[in-house]
Amino acid sequence: MGILRMGYAHIRVTDLAEAKAHYANTLGLYETLDQDGKLYFKGWDEWDHHSLVIEEGGVGLVKFGFKVEKAEDIDEIEKKGQQFGLTVERMSKGENPEVSDGIRFTTPSDHVFEVYHDQTLIGTEVGTHNPEAFPRHLVGVGVPGLDHSLILAEDVRTMENMLTNVFGFYATERVQTDLNDDDAHYIATWMTSNNQIHQIAVLEGPQSKLHHVAFKLQDWAEVGHAGDIMVMDDVPIDIGPTRHGITRGQTIYFFDPSGNRNEVFAGGYLAYPDRPTVKWTPDQIARGIFYHAREMNERFTTVST
Amino acid sequence: MGILRMGYAHIRVTDLAEAKAHYANTLGLYETLDQDGKLYFKGWDEWDHHSLVIEEGGVGLVKFGFKVEKAEDIDEIEKKGQQFGLTVERMSKGENPEVSDGIRFTTPSDHVFEVYHDQTLIGTEVGTHNPEAFPRHLVGVGVPGLDHSLILAEDVRTMENMLTNVFGFYATERVQTDLNDDDAHYIATWMTSNNQIHQIAVLEGPQSKLHHVAFKLQDWAEVGHAGDIMVMDDVPIDIGPTRHGITRGQTIYFFDPSGNRNEVFAGGYLAYPDRPTVKWTPDQIARGIFYHAREMNERFTTVST
Amino acid sequence: MGILRMGYAHIRVTDLAEAKAHYANTLGLYETLDQDGKLYFKGWDEWDHHSLVIEEGGVGLVKFGFKVEKAEDIDEIEKKGQQFGLTVERMSKGENPEVSDGIRFTTPSDHVFEVYHDQTLIGTEVGTHNPEAFPRHLVGVGVPGLDHSLILAEDVRTMENMLTNVFGFYATERVQTDLNDDDAHYIATWMTSNNQIHQIAVLEGPQSKLHHVAFKLQDWAEVGHAGDIMVMDDVPIDIGPTRHGITRGQTIYFFDPSGNRNEVFAGGYLAYPDRPTVKWTPDQIARGIFYHAREMNERFTTVST
Amino acid sequence: MGILRMGYAHIRVTDLAEAKAHYANTLGLYETLDQDGKLYFKGWDEWDHHSLVIEEGGVGLVKFGFKVEKAEDIDEIEKKGQQFGLTVERMSKGENPEVSDGIRFTTPSDHVFEVYHDQTLIGTEVGTHNPEAFPRHLVGVGVPGLDHSLILAEDVRTMENMLTNVFGFYATERVQTDLNDDDAHYIATWMTSNNQIHQIAVLEGPQSKLHHVAFKLQDWAEVGHAGDIMVMDDVPIDIGPTRHGITRGQTIYFFDPSGNRNEVFAGGYLAYPDRPTVKWTPDQIARGIFYHAREMNERFTTVST
Repeated sequence: MGILRMGYAHIRVTDLAEAKAHYANTLGLYETLDQDGKLYFKGWDEWDHHSLVIEEGGVGLVKFGFKVEKAEDIDEIEKKGQQFGLTVERMSKGENPEVSDGIRFTTPSDHVFEVYHDQTLIGTEVGTHNPEAFPRHLVGVGVPGLDHSLILAEDVRTMENMLTNVFGFYATERVQTDLNDDDAHYIATWMTSNNQIHQIAVLEGPQSKLHHVAFKLQDWAEVGHAGDIMVMDDVPIDIGPTRHGITRGQTIYFFDPSGNRNEVFAGGYLAYPDRPTVKWTPDQIARGIFYHAREMNERFTTVST
Repeated sequence: MGILRMGYAHIRVTDLAEAKAHYANTLGLYETLDQDGKLYFKGWDEWDHHSLVIEEGGVGLVKFGFKVEKAEDIDEIEKKGQQFGLTVERMSKGENPEVSDGIRFTTPSDHVFEVYHDQTLIGTEVGTHNPEAFPRHLVGVGVPGLDHSLILAEDVRTMENMLTNVFGFYATERVQTDLNDDDAHYIATWMTSNNQIHQIAVLEGPQSKLHHVAFKLQDWAEVGHAGDIMVMDDVPIDIGPTRHGITRGQTIYFFDPSGNRNEVFAGGYLAYPDRPTVKWTPDQIARGIFYHAREMNERFTTVST
Repeated sequence: MGILRMGYAHIRVTDLAEAKAHYANTLGLYETLDQDGKLYFKGWDEWDHHSLVIEEGGVGLVKFGFKVEKAEDIDEIEKKGQQFGLTVERMSKGENPEVSDGIRFTTPSDHVFEVYHDQTLIGTEVGTHNPEAFPRHLVGVGVPGLDHSLILAEDVRTMENMLTNVFGFYATERVQTDLNDDDAHYIATWMTSNNQIHQIAVLEGPQSKLHHVAFKLQDWAEVGHAGDIMVMDDVPIDIGPTRHGITRGQTIYFFDPSGNRNEVFAGGYLAYPDRPTVKWTPDQIARGIFYHAREMNERFTTVST
Repeated sequence: MGILRMGYAHIRVTDLAEAKAHYANTLGLYETLDQDGKLYFKGWDEWDHHSLVIEEGGVGLVKFGFKVEKAEDIDEIEKKGQQFGLTVERMSKGENPEVSDGIRFTTPSDHVFEVYHDQTLIGTEVGTHNPEAFPRHLVGVGVPGLDHSLILAEDVRTMENMLTNVFGFYATERVQTDLNDDDAHYIATWMTSNNQIHQIAVLEGPQSKLHHVAFKLQDWAEVGHAGDIMVMDDVPIDIGPTRHGITRGQTIYFFDPSGNRNEVFAGGYLAYPDRPTVKWTPDQIARGIFYHAREMNERFTTVST
């Protein structure tokens, strides 16, 4: 199978205590480790040790970790990365607490990606034996887990090529200047290796920047409820509740106390590699991003961390 | 990737006109072909030519078709099938209209499975260029596509082994007599090759029987609405709206005019091969199947086609 | 305006501690008083002191309290009650803690009704100044308040007459043997004084019995969520989640630990006295009660307290 | 009971054909009369002849009609109107097609209000005998009926006084400069005579202007679906889907083709005259109006018709 999913997002925050209140009390993530000035969290429906790491000192992305199915997948991706021209280094078990050995490289977009095959198994909060449908006492929004991330890159097409050739991803949706031209300019791409509608998306913009980290929700009712909780907890909402035209997902964009953009994301359709890529033209991008408003807010294109 | 999904279910009905009214007018499937006494349907969000085939003459399953990603996958599965001891025959392009060549075999449970790598691409009803979120004029329940099926087998463990070894499936959930015993008796298993929570499930029961064919819905609101439409169209509801404990899916079981059980299914969680299999004990099976009622109705275990 | 609403339901339970766990921890009612072996509760969105009273010693109804808008309404209802032939007695302030003086009478169905014009104002849990949409920390199902009740009576028509003539109620829906016959036999009636779809309903059955007490929910999503919580708390569900044909409400019937039937109820339409009464024939009563299943479960007609 | 509800809104549109497409095809209202250049509509769940009237020639409000329960209520309101200092004129049966006689007056805010006691009864689209929960074939958004309206006035307090003294309304929520000062300046008020959370609201602004006419929906799921349909039909959305803090309603504001603002409105709580009025301070008005965004868009305060 190769890449299973984006296993963790590691980001910087300006104040660890404020960030902890946000991710634990408002979003309802479970803290699993506090070590070396970093906090590690998982959602209630995740079984691996952590999916979010925060550390104090600025904003933006430190790195992403992608989990592969088998240890051998690491070697394969290393080889493909080198063929693509990436500088791939080996990562040892324990460089990330509770994470196996693997590889690390910097993408053409100047983001750091790690690839690993194992994390300490903690188990979900409902367990595996005759489980309930969800934990009886969820906190705040109660997100079940990490979903995906959107990053910025000067050259979207190169990033799509890298994700295709090195990670075995395919594009489920894309914004491009000409729908029928193979040489069209790519403005944004949504990519996955499996049936999740996207694990990572790339939007044209400044190198190394993070647009948002998204957490899962079940459906539109949960998205609405999440918005209400955000109001009560004074979380600034960027936009939403609304729907994306692209992916059909139901969404709220909001900001953590440091200014990193978060998303809660529900719905969307199951992706398949034999499903034709959905293509959007630049004149329709506003409807693609904010389906109901059909106009971009200025923040979407100007605020990243 | 191997098996992409259950691509089609081909079933028998006692009256073709009544069945057409049910699948087209109530469920909202699109008829794509009427040929040789068979009707072919697809959901609005499916891109291949058909996912449901009905033919007159009794009830129950004729066969399932599983789509693989690449033509080479066929050879691989053929080889593994022979290693497992199955009698695998080659199937020619055109034996099923608009379907490529592939293989066919009878499972240990006496069901016919076909495996193919291509179907004529029709496209979804929203298209691939700047699409809307769903078709403006849906009919009835408006199911987007086929989801999964549950079949009966005398020997569930052997079926799980076959699906594992030949199809590369893994069990997401299972009912077994002893949670910690490797030799436990398997009562039911839910299996998939990818992130879909199940493509096929197998329940202990008489050989060759079909328990139900399920169609997708987006969420609990759509499940409730589907139930209302079924009342208006005099569709007999077996149980629901309710939730499954197993898979967490939200569901209604109902019957087509011939007595074949259908399901609409929403929710559930994304499956991953590194997620520990959820295991249920027989004393909790009623809660696993009908989460709210926590008691089986007699039909569930006695009615199949 | 006369009768504002059913202000409280006072019921008997077999075990006070068990009942408290049910009404406070599972349904999420707030305990406002523990006095003389009785517990008093209100929902988070109710402003009066209590809407549910429980006392130990059996099961079933002790009495209902109906609140009127003005003290003068008491005199008016007393007079109309006497004209109807009821024995109306005066009730003093303090006979019910935090409740004003008023009147009390036994209905032709052998239930005790109290009418009062004031309760101590406690206020809702969100307050009246720049309130949030709901309390940040709801417990369990988190019902906002009491909704309505269904009682049994040997003579439904007489009860409808009494509620019409004494309380100024009107029937929003009714089950009767002949839709067009003024002398039709009444099997059940749903009655209100205002826009609430029903404050009290009366079903043909043994005198003095309680069928259920219902609590409000906002919508179908909350009904589904309530069902999940009931499973986790081992609350026996009678039927649901489903819809009523009668009132269109979305519902779960369930039992408190003593066997008194409860309901959570959402949706329905706004009632108006100029809206024609909806009438159901006995052959359609199953669809009227359990819209999706279209068949009665035996409990509905045989279990009352 | 006096005023039952806002029975009709009569507005001007710039193009009758475009407006008809909007109200009939997108919102799903049923046209019941086309006469003298005016079109009359009702929602599927309304029983009276019409609730919306459109006529060509500009934009904005022609008049509202309020229905009372009994013919005698007309006299009572006439008398109270005269006592309040209004110039009340008698209106004959047939001045409005299918509407009884009544009265007409111009409010202190320069809007025309009519009061009538009867309209020709057409019946809902589901009928009154063993009805289904909704019509099997709804068009577009499928609104069940008119809900309320928001108008502008230079002097909100005088309008609240008028609605209180003449119509017997009470304020369910209010924005005022000082929560505890009886002489506080009123910025907006939400008013009703019964349990509907508001029949009419008044916001400080230019005389005679219409802010919006609102139609009912059942719940948040329907609000989201309505937003999707609006995108498909190119209806400009002003804001939403979102929630109001004031009334807790779930909402989308949008514009008809002439630029009149419409709303779809679901949820809210049942109003009662003994429930303390919810009061908002001006610094919290943005959260009160747009609960999630907590900032006003400029259109809300500047665009009216």
